Amino acid sequence: MIREELSEVPEYVPGKSVEEIKRAYGLKRVVKLASNENPYGASPKVFEVVKNFRDFHVYPPKNPVELKERISEYVNFPEEMIVVGDGLDGVLENVFKMFVSKGDTVAIPIPTFPYYEILAKIYGARIKFLRRNENFETIEFDEKAKLTIICSPNNPTGNVENFEFVREVAESVKGVVFIDEAYAEFTEKRLTKLAEYENVIVGRTFSKAFGLANLRVGYAIMNENFAKEYMKVCPPFPISTLAILAAITALDDIEYVKRTVEKIVTERNRLEKALGKYFEVYPSEANFVYVEAENSDSVCYELERRGVIVRNLKNFRGVRNGIRISVGKPEENDFLLKTLEEIF
Amino acid sequence: MIREELSEVPEYVPGKSVEEIKRAYGLKRVVKLASNENPYGASPKVFEVVKNFRDFHVYPPKNPVELKERISEYVNFPEEMIVVGDGLDGVLENVFKMFVSKGDTVAIPIPTFPYYEILAKIYGARIKFLRRNENFETIEFDEKAKLTIICSPNNPTGNVENFEFVREVAESVKGVVFIDEAYAEFTEKRLTKLAEYENVIVGRTFSKAFGLANLRVGYAIMNENFAKEYMKVCPPFPISTLAILAAITALDDIEYVKRTVEKIVTERNRLEKALGKYFEVYPSEANFVYVEAENSDSVCYELERRGVIVRNLKNFRGVRNGIRISVGKPEENDFLLKTLEEIF
Repeated sequence: MIREELSEVPEYVPGKSVEEIKRAYGLKRVVKLASNENPYGASPKVFEVVKNFRDFHVYPPKNPVELKERISEYVNFPEEMIVVGDGLDGVLENVFKMFVSKGDTVAIPIPTFPYYEILAKIYGARIKFLRRNENFETIEFDEKAKLTIICSPNNPTGNVENFEFVREVAESVKGVVFIDEAYAEFTEKRLTKLAEYENVIVGRTFSKAFGLANLRVGYAIMNENFAKEYMKVCPPFPISTLAILAAITALDDIEYVKRTVEKIVTERNRLEKALGKYFEVYPSEANFVYVEAENSDSVCYELERRGVIVRNLKNFRGVRNGIRISVGKPEENDFLLKTLEEIF
Repeated sequence: MIREELSEVPEYVPGKSVEEIKRAYGLKRVVKLASNENPYGASPKVFEVVKNFRDFHVYPPKNPVELKERISEYVNFPEEMIVVGDGLDGVLENVFKMFVSKGDTVAIPIPTFPYYEILAKIYGARIKFLRRNENFETIEFDEKAKLTIICSPNNPTGNVENFEFVREVAESVKGVVFIDEAYAEFTEKRLTKLAEYENVIVGRTFSKAFGLANLRVGYAIMNENFAKEYMKVCPPFPISTLAILAAITALDDIEYVKRTVEKIVTERNRLEKALGKYFEVYPSEANFVYVEAENSDSVCYELERRGVIVRNLKNFRGVRNGIRISVGKPEENDFLLKTLEEIF
């Protein structure tokens, strides 16, 4: 009875939690550098707003006008071009529902965030994997693709895409280009301006720099007509009022976000240098560092049993011996480096 | 570029908020009896849990094991048969992704919750509308339907479906039967037991009796194999940790829920009698009352400009002159009745 397309979708395998790893290895301290979360957390002002919330029984708005106004100011595109969703994942799924019919081509440069491939399979797309160069910059596209997905800074490799190349893609393809800028705040090299193209959609999130991953607030910039169609396919209540208030408050306290981003970038630079002692390190424009090591599998295991969780990328398509390490607080990064010193 | 199926999906038209109605008519007091929310709100214990939450920057789990255990006890089905989603809307959309390919038949008794039809259109289904009798009980089905949706108690008519009839549907159709029991807590006449059938899925929510509409927590009972496939199509982070904690806390304080349900049922009975003076009233097993009046349109307008918002059903498929009135607190219902007295 199940749709045959789902036979291609990988089964869900639960990851190990910090608690499970503590128990498994009898550890007191476990540092998780695996999910690219903001280790400094959300602005303390968010706590205040959430603390006083009582309207749990009231439905949230489908169209949170005030939040969209604030995002509009933040990204410098008109409010009519802003849509929100249940995390950037939710936004992207809505984009699939807008454009992708069974058999349509979805073009995905690899390696990249695996969820694109999963969504493409769920929606029965034909997937065209695109090649990258030795710096992981995408170097090809498919003119006939209905949807081309560009992740910049790219998860898990940390590099940004070349602005002129992505512009060429936008001008050449018959379909839509979705630029996933989840990590935009950690770089100066943004592609956001390309949302001026009719066929370009730029997706963003409050999950990374803004420290609101738990509340699932994503948004996108797209042309006004697309934005109207988006509202048709968007679930009735994409984000809670609590999440809306938190996102507005986080935008109000943009200085806090800037400070945490600065700290993360400083630590990223330190980590990039320090990790060079053990790995081949690729320069990052995000809040994580991509490294390669021949024995990546055993390194991940040795780190884990000593209380450091990183992301082993052995199941990522197009990756060989890669590890993705989120940038933590200084003391967390110290713990990582000390543990690596122990292992090597 | 937009998928052609979306031309069939209605455009999003924002409803008026309480604030807008206050402004429009210069009103101080506006009572909203239009969204079937629990007027007593969530258990106060939920406020305590939420107040102390700080991990906004940490991703929630995809598979909230503890919540699933607690739901399993509550509905008396094994944990392996429980799935959760971003509201019951999210659960239902995942069910569409599991079963409905373009051109498949989705059978929907009308009148009912309009979102079923919207989802069916988004996913390119052929829709077969099913007839109901004069008590709004569904009286036909389509053997070949890939998905049959039964809402019981039915939104907006408030009646439950006949258990033996729905059993016959489950035993006769080639596809899956989805029973939407969003309002299950307000009746004794539940269909939940039918989830024992391999091809029956029962959906439930924390949005109504539990007073957590804002946090978007839905769940479903389905056979173990379906539950595995569900995890493939479910978004990576369907509900926030805050929502998980709130739902667990609400289940812990089940006595609070029972008390508010009792109060709502008492008020429902009172409203049913009192509304008979002005309307044709249909008996309800939910937290709202369905009434009909020849001049329903003008009644809704007259109520609105006096500060009472009810749901005018003139755009509901299969409804003629219907109004859906959510059961409020005693003083809210008094205000409604006083205002009706004024109008008539």
